Order: sequence, then structure tokens, then C-alpha cells
Amino acid sequence: MGQLAERRDYIMEQADTIINTRWLVPVEPSGAVLDHHALIIRAGRIAQILPQTEAKQRYQAPCIRELGNHVLIPGLVNAHTHAAMALLRGLADDLPLLSWLKEHIWPAEQIHVSAEFVQQGSELAVAEMLLGGITCFNDMYFFPEATARIAAQAGMRAVVGMIVIDLPSVYAASADEYLSRGLALHDTLRNHPLVTTALAPHAPYTVSERNLERIRILADELDVPVHIHLHETAHEIAQSIERHGVRPLARLDAIGLLSPSLIAVHMTQLEAIEMDRLAETGTHIVHCPESNLKLASGFAPVPALLERGINVALGTDGAASNNDLDMFGEMRMAALLAKGVAGDATALPAHHALHMATLAGAQALGLADRIGSLVPGKYADLVAIDLGCLSSAPVYNPISQLVYAVDRSQVSDVWVAGREAVTNGRLTSLDPTAILSQCQYWHDKIQA
Amino acid sequence: MGQLAERRDYIMEQADTIINTRWLVPVEPSGAVLDHHALIIRAGRIAQILPQTEAKQRYQAPCIRELGNHVLIPGLVNAHTHAAMALLRGLADDLPLLSWLKEHIWPAEQIHVSAEFVQQGSELAVAEMLLGGITCFNDMYFFPEATARIAAQAGMRAVVGMIVIDLPSVYAASADEYLSRGLALHDTLRNHPLVTTALAPHAPYTVSERNLERIRILADELDVPVHIHLHETAHEIAQSIERHGVRPLARLDAIGLLSPSLIAVHMTQLEAIEMDRLAETGTHIVHCPESNLKLASGFAPVPALLERGINVALGTDGAASNNDLDMFGEMRMAALLAKGVAGDATALPAHHALHMATLAGAQALGLADRIGSLVPGKYADLVAIDLGCLSSAPVYNPISQLVYAVDRSQVSDVWVAGREAVTNGRLTSLDPTAILSQCQYWHDKIQA
Repeated sequence: MGQLAERRDYIMEQADTIINTRWLVPVEPSGAVLDHHALIIRAGRIAQILPQTEAKQRYQAPCIRELGNHVLIPGLVNAHTHAAMALLRGLADDLPLLSWLKEHIWPAEQIHVSAEFVQQGSELAVAEMLLGGITCFNDMYFFPEATARIAAQAGMRAVVGMIVIDLPSVYAASADEYLSRGLALHDTLRNHPLVTTALAPHAPYTVSERNLERIRILADELDVPVHIHLHETAHEIAQSIERHGVRPLARLDAIGLLSPSLIAVHMTQLEAIEMDRLAETGTHIVHCPESNLKLASGFAPVPALLERGINVALGTDGAASNNDLDMFGEMRMAALLAKGVAGDATALPAHHALHMATLAGAQALGLADRIGSLVPGKYADLVAIDLGCLSSAPVYNPISQLVYAVDRSQVSDVWVAGREAVTNGRLTSLDPTAILSQCQYWHDKIQA
Repeated sequence: MGQLAERRDYIMEQADTIINTRWLVPVEPSGAVLDHHALIIRAGRIAQILPQTEAKQRYQAPCIRELGNHVLIPGLVNAHTHAAMALLRGLADDLPLLSWLKEHIWPAEQIHVSAEFVQQGSELAVAEMLLGGITCFNDMYFFPEATARIAAQAGMRAVVGMIVIDLPSVYAASADEYLSRGLALHDTLRNHPLVTTALAPHAPYTVSERNLERIRILADELDVPVHIHLHETAHEIAQSIERHGVRPLARLDAIGLLSPSLIAVHMTQLEAIEMDRLAETGTHIVHCPESNLKLASGFAPVPALLERGINVALGTDGAASNNDLDMFGEMRMAALLAKGVAGDATALPAHHALHMATLAGAQALGLADRIGSLVPGKYADLVAIDLGCLSSAPVYNPISQLVYAVDRSQVSDVWVAGREAVTNGRLTSLDPTAILSQCQYWHDKIQA
């Protein structure tokens, strides 16, 4: 027996971590649910996914996790946010968009935004997102270097926006300065394992044609995505027609920006011909259903986009207009709202909502070769959700539970590139007490 | 000093419980937030609400609770559910309404529903609802005596429906039998402190005119509300016009059912003249936004109803069409959806969503003299929500937090008539392990 044990030890493959989970939802293929499988992590990546009985024969690892009531899914990708705005959560609600922006959000930003604000706001957001199973976010805000620093420190994947806006701020005085600061950050992050960049022109109505053209050229040169707010409200369309004689999408098309590098956020106002053009060009869309509802911006025609094969990811938007950074809430809202708006209870089934919150996000960010699904070779960006509580019982279908019934408080463990960022519901690299005290500081300052 | 202490002791008023809370939202007046107040409980009722500094001078009690990061609100009222259907949660989703009902839900009910199913399903639902801050629910299902028994045992307030439907079931063979079983239950519950009854004709298309007339007469005699599904889908309206030449609401009006005793659930299909009639007659409406979206039933015109002064409560519907019994989710959905549908970001502000989930529910159920707001003299049906976590920071406005950011997992303590049903997130009278094992039993049986 001793000899046999030694021999087995010899032929067994070594891994870093073995996760034995009750259910595993790989997202690819869509709708699949694996029972009693093991996920093997080696060097930060998924080495293998196989039945637990086989895994016991083939793999050994110093760390073996038993997740008896859990479902393991790819880390959620929040494809549009303004992380630092978490400090403005609930400062102003239930107001018309323009009064909300002009009388509350912009004045607060003008007075308070600084590198310190962005760092501490991003820390709050990163902590909240990790605890809620988000392993990657696509950000657009001032001082992106502060957001990048926090994400790196927390071991979270992020795409930080090289923001460009034709309005001076404490961060940059001109579009040139925005760009040069962004490019310096891009340079700093070269070869960073977790944090990458995108060009982030704020919107077609706040960035000039000339600057949008420069951004297109830069995007090609640097091979980074372009992240922009687009067709968010009917007002934006009307204003563009008035000023430029065409709708914003047509302007971007003329500049050559519609492509698989473009991440177009919101898109609540779309004509059929525009959707066809989005499909032709491979443009990615980020749907932010809660923000669009809260600001009464309109309804993105998600089923019509999906029918055309357009890639639609999901985002929370910033916590000033949501007011949480909760991708479980966003998945549920997307799935429910699509049915209501289409008048069709079969629209956007649960497994597709999960696809939007994972693989579609990875595709939009150009990261689908690395993350977004549980496939050997991809990074081990993982979330375990405990379905062993009353509100998730009984479990006929774990994917239905994830989309229609789970609270993010059921997230127990989160891995990014194989490293645990959340263990048993607790952050491994950030200190909630310190973050809460920073929040109190900003609260008191902003309230005053 | 000794004498002074004795004297103060002598003049202090005795209470059962003193709750010192960081914030208190009484719901009446709407939008009010009290800082650092104490709520005094005596004999199951709210004796007083006053600043903590004053409370320390005036009251003593054997139990003093310190809720330093919490907001205390009235217990949430789930104004429409089918509790026992929690056992069918996630059995079938993303299907057209008729195939969902005819191929999945009804067959499962036909095979499995029994007094035991209803008792164990209700136990799951009652546990989930209490943990989520719901202190009162309005139920409609077979074997209501089993649901009543569980609510009473758990110390939860409930209005159980004396269900009537012109279709035989294992519970009753005819409308007469439904009614007689319901009336027997009504008799059993006479003078029950927590559990009362309503007449619950299923819908205008499943209960004959004659039986609806009997129900109206009985409602007057017994002084109980009438709880009915109404104008849920466009199909219901079309079918009524085809069969009866009029819309369902007109049929109920002709029978004399429109009144402050009627609890009309769903109401996604309404013309202006119908809304005027609902206002004139004082009819109550229960809005179930998540269920209406999931089944693609339509959008209840909530802002238009509220403008007319109609009382609109909130309900989760059953967990087979939601799939959770989460009134925080329902509040958020109601507030967000109203804005999106009205195209107006000021529609249904947070404090009104909270009103719908509390006082409006109590009014609909005829219980507003007893519950629904934190007012001295009403029963101490209370919920404490911990805002001390990252996802609720910073707190500029506790009501905004409650509606737009709180997870029900932040519910820490729940009282019904002054008795703690949940303490520090744990149920006091129900055993989650036993309930989960019952769920597994039903899961295996139904799955097979």
C-alpha cells in the first residue's frame, strides 16, 4: 500500500489550487451546468475542469477548497463604471438629469475631485465590486492613475480609461493635457498583468471631431479599445442633429470609430439601420439598465441587438446614478427589463444575462482570450456563490438562481488570476474599516 | 446622589424594549428621517419615539438595543404573494406565460400540492420573508390553513386568502367547498392577534359572476378585504371583451366590488377612465413590478395612479414568477421602472417607494390603524437595516440607501408586535436547517 501511494504521488500532476464545487457554470457553452466538478488552478490559470472523482486521481495541490453548496462562475465583468463616484452614492436622487448633473454632481465634483478623492473613491468601489463577485471593471474618470493603483493593489483586473473631454478640470486643462496624462499612464502600465488601458473620450458632445480623430489613430497605434458614452438620451440625439445635422453614431462612423475596438455605452436610442451598422462593424455595446432607468434615459433595445449578433455587455455605471455596483442586480434587471420591453417572456433568458455579465464583457474589453469563461488556459478569475441559503432553495437550475434570486451577499470567494481576493466573504487585501473611515471623511466634507 | 438616582428611578417610565437607532424613518410624515432617536416598545406597541437623550431620562426597560449604524423602519408589507410556491422557485423560467403555466406550474401543482406541500412551502417563504424584513404578507393559495398555521407559529403577521376558484383541486371540489373551507378558517382565526383573512377570488376569468356576487356580500358581512388578480395581461382584457362584451374591471364594478375593500393585484392594463373610477371608489392596487416584467405582462401606470390619489401597495407575487420574496428588490424595481416608463427621473421618488412597501400595504389590507408606519399606538412591527457596510457608504440619505442600494442581507433585526422574529440576522422561531432539508425533499420529488 505504501508503495502504491508513493507511486500515485509520483504520477499525479501538481496544481496550486483544486476547487471542488457542487455546480460549475463555464458560460461556454452557454447554459451548461457541470455537477460535482473540480477546477484546477496552476500559475494563475485554469489548468483543467473535470469531474471530482477524476480530479482526485489526477491532481494534488497544497490548497484544496470544498464548495459543497456553491456554484462557481467566471468573475463578473463590469463593463462601464466611474469607480470613484462611489463617494457620491445617494448624494442626489429622483431629479431630472440636467438638474441632477448641473446642480448636484458637477458642483460636488468641481469642488472635491482630486487624486486623493479618486484614490479613496476607487478603493470603496473596488472593495464593493470584489465583495460582489466583480473581478474586472472598465472605468472612466479623472485621475485614472489613482484608480489603476488601487486596482493593482487590490489584485483586481481593470481597464482604466485615458479620459478625454474638451472641458478643463483639476485633472487636465485641455484635451492635449488629458491625452498626454493618459498616454503617460498607458506607458506606466505597459505589461501590467492586471491593469490595462482604453482611450476614453467622454461623449460625442463633449469631445471635438478633431480629438475624436486623434483618438481613433491612437487606438490603432496602441491597440487599445475606445470607451465612450453614446446615444444615452433623446436629448443627445436632438442636439447632435441640431448642431451637426446628423445623429452621433453617424458622426463616429464618419470618423471611422465604429469597429470591434469601440465600446459604446448606453445606446438607448437606436434605429434599425443603426443597429445593422453596429452589427456590420463589430462594435460592442454596454447596456446599463439600472442607470438608464434611474435617469429616465430610455430603453436599450437589447433583444434586437442580440438578434443581429451584436455583442452586448453589462455595466453598472457609477454609483451616483445606480446606486450600487452590483452586477447580480444588473443581470436580473437586464433579463427582466428585456422581457417587459419586448412583451416577450422568453427574451433574454437567464443564461444569456450571465453571458452578458461575463464573456460579453471580456469580449468588449478585448480580453476574451484571457477571461470571461471557465475554459482551460484562461486566467482563473472566479466567483463562488453559496446557494445553501433559504432564499436560494430549492435549486432546480443554478443559472436561474444566479440571475433571478441570488443576492451578492451570497458571494463567498473570489479569485483573480488564481489569487484569492475574497475568502469567505472577506477581502484579503483591503481594509474595510479604513475605507469606511475615509468615506466618513468625504461624507462630512461633501455634506458641508 | 444615591437619593437622586433612586428618585429618578421612581419617576422613570417602564418599557419592555428601548431601541436606540442611528436613523429612524417613520414613513409618516413621508420623507422624514430622525437622527439618534429611540423607539420605546410596551405591550407589543410603539409607546413613544423620541431623541435618545430624552429617552435616557424618561424610560427604562429590561431590554435595550443599540443600533449604531442602523436605520429603523416599519416592517415591510408584501401585499401579494403565493407563499407556498417558494418550493417551485426556478422550476421553469424564460417561457411564454401560457406554456409556463400549462406545461410547468399547473402540472407540478396538480401532482404535488397538498396540505403538507403548502405548510412546508409556506415555512420556506415565511423564513425568507422575515429574514428580508417583511413582517406581514397577503397570501392567496390552496390550503390557507397551513399557511396561517406557519405564520402564527413564526410570529409573523399575515392575511391569508379564503381562495375561491371555479376549478376543482385537491383542496376543494367546487366553489362552494372552497368558500366553506375558507369560512371555517375565518372562524378559527377569529380574534387571532396576527393572522387574519381576506376573501380571495382568483381572478374574474376563473370565478363566475354568481360567485363574485356571493363574495361581495360575504365581504360586507365579515368586514374582510377581497383580494383578486385583475387586469394582469392584455390577453385577460381581450378574452373578457370576447366573452362578456366588457373589460374585467367593468364587470367587477357592475357587481359592486370596486370599493376600499378591494385589493386589485397587477393592473398593468388600464385606461384613464378606469383609473378615475378606481380613484372614485377607493379601490387599492398592488403593483408587482418584477413578476409583471418576468412574465412580460405589461407596465402598471404607477405615476398616473398615484397622481389620482389611488393607494398603490407593492407585492412580490409568488417565487415561481419572481423568483425571490424580496421587498427591497421590489421597492428598487418600482422606483426605477416608474422613471423609465414615465420618461421622468423624478417619478416615484425613494420615499414614496418606501411608503408603498409599508403604509400603502397596510392600508390595502385594512391594517393601517395597526401597522405600516412608526407612530405611537401602532404595533411594533419593525425592521433594522445595517448601513455600516461598504456598499451603503457614504450615507447622505438613509431613504435613498434603503431603496437604491440596500441588499436584504443587511436586515439585522425584525420585530413583529414587539417580539423579535429575527435577531442579528437569525430567525428566532424557525429552524433553517430543517427547512432546507424539507426543500431538498420536495426538490427531489418534483424534479423526478
